[in-house]
Amino acid sequence: MAKKKSKKSEKGPEKSVDLAAKITEKLRVTPGFGLASFDASSTPGFKGDKAEAAEVLADSDAEIDDLQERLYANGKDGDGPSVLLVVQGMDTSGKGGIMRHVVGSVDPQGVSLTSFKSPTAEEKKHPFLWRIRKGLPEPGMIAVFDRSHYEDVLIVRVHNLVPASTWQRRYGQINTFEQSVTDSGTKIIKIMLHIDADEQKARLSERLDRPDKWWKFNPGDLDERAYWDHYQEAYQVLLDKTSTDTAPWYVVPANRKWYARLAVQQILLHHLRGLDQPWPEAEFDVEEQKARLAEL
Amino acid sequence: MAKKKSKKSEKGPEKSVDLAAKITEKLRVTPGFGLASFDASSTPGFKGDKAEAAEVLADSDAEIDDLQERLYANGKDGDGPSVLLVVQGMDTSGKGGIMRHVVGSVDPQGVSLTSFKSPTAEEKKHPFLWRIRKGLPEPGMIAVFDRSHYEDVLIVRVHNLVPASTWQRRYGQINTFEQSVTDSGTKIIKIMLHIDADEQKARLSERLDRPDKWWKFNPGDLDERAYWDHYQEAYQVLLDKTSTDTAPWYVVPANRKWYARLAVQQILLHHLRGLDQPWPEAEFDVEEQKARLAEL
Repeated sequence: MAKKKSKKSEKGPEKSVDLAAKITEKLRVTPGFGLASFDASSTPGFKGDKAEAAEVLADSDAEIDDLQERLYANGKDGDGPSVLLVVQGMDTSGKGGIMRHVVGSVDPQGVSLTSFKSPTAEEKKHPFLWRIRKGLPEPGMIAVFDRSHYEDVLIVRVHNLVPASTWQRRYGQINTFEQSVTDSGTKIIKIMLHIDADEQKARLSERLDRPDKWWKFNPGDLDERAYWDHYQEAYQVLLDKTSTDTAPWYVVPANRKWYARLAVQQILLHHLRGLDQPWPEAEFDVEEQKARLAEL
Repeated sequence: MAKKKSKKSEKGPEKSVDLAAKITEKLRVTPGFGLASFDASSTPGFKGDKAEAAEVLADSDAEIDDLQERLYANGKDGDGPSVLLVVQGMDTSGKGGIMRHVVGSVDPQGVSLTSFKSPTAEEKKHPFLWRIRKGLPEPGMIAVFDRSHYEDVLIVRVHNLVPASTWQRRYGQINTFEQSVTDSGTKIIKIMLHIDADEQKARLSERLDRPDKWWKFNPGDLDERAYWDHYQEAYQVLLDKTSTDTAPWYVVPANRKWYARLAVQQILLHHLRGLDQPWPEAEFDVEEQKARLAEL
């Protein structure tokens, strides 16, 4: 696992602790939150610019390494906590960038990443949470969902892919599910990357302008864009109904990619700190093993 | 996926091309290779020191990003090539460091990592390649094996976990299997991290000295160390029998972690270059989509 040691004590922990806690607090969805009036270009909790954000992002890696390795070490014997990071957002909101630049900076041995696409024929035969359960983290692991069970109250709701009575029930089912996952020792962190319609247009336009981006474009993306307002409404309902004390949502303004990456990293950092994992005790007699090794 | 563009043309490709090709050539196992006389502290194909290696390692990231993204893009429609990177080595040889520092620098969306532990009860019911097949890469993906089917002719051979006639057959079965995997479009890269016995002793000793390393230590590691010579012999036989034209082995001197990481990265880079993937053509009318987007 990670070789770097925590540089916490050398780096002025106060500033860093404050930033992660501050961003986490500012982006947490509480009752009365309104998506429509939340500025997607804002940078709550962070006064710096792009270059400063990149610096904090890089500087926080060593601490995340250390905390992640402690988490992993404590999971080795089959219990101990785990983390589930759920990432949602409209097309082009930057989910892939979060995977690459934030998730990608964590030791891959401690991460399990699942991208949820349209359900397969096999998946459709099962209740909607069936495939989700299969992606839940083992003890010590950080599971990351690129899209999630929330698609079952987003695209499914917008296009009425199941009867309304079915998707209406799902909010409650999701809350019950997430409570049980939490009770089993998994810290759930739910992120919505929030861009506005103009930003999406610019990003889709870039994909069409650049041959190295064509593979990311699908004409269906434009069909979906036509439902922008319906999706925003579906997100608002979802935030109202499923931002619980157990598993609150964090809405991250994502028009500025550099802020979104910093914010997701700091929210993850804040929660890893909260898990507060010591190095496990040795399950063997250290001196006895040293003596054995000396003979070999 | 990766945002960085290839810096190939700006970086003096000649030197870099040479290095990857040179290291790959030097470490490739050919008939007559002798593990016992291969210096685990050497740095074949690289004249620089640790700092220079770290620089090349960082500088090569952008090109690997670009090549990996092209590979991934071409796999999107369900065909196209893929890569399988197999990493083997004695305990403490640095497999974890390769996962973190080399595999960890590749976009996690394009990587599937499998760590093969002792087979589970379920796995034991099946032929030894059953669990291996489940870890093979989808088109466009880089699959990474931390240990692999080669354990079935290493620990299994050393401890006679199956009858000798069974493990003896496996070398041929592995070659047939790897030929079929290659024929299906997967480039197989097999790495053995090579440390010597003194280096292992020093690394085990460090694990015992540092409380933050205790979780990585298991008294069974010392039991296995007692079989050092048997393992070296099993590796030599495996290299003799399974370093084929289709899927050759690369033995990487790994007493110096910085060299091992550089070498594995450059071997991966060399093979990614060899796949030579263009950006996929658009499967839609670009101008038509631009016109649609303008209206939305």
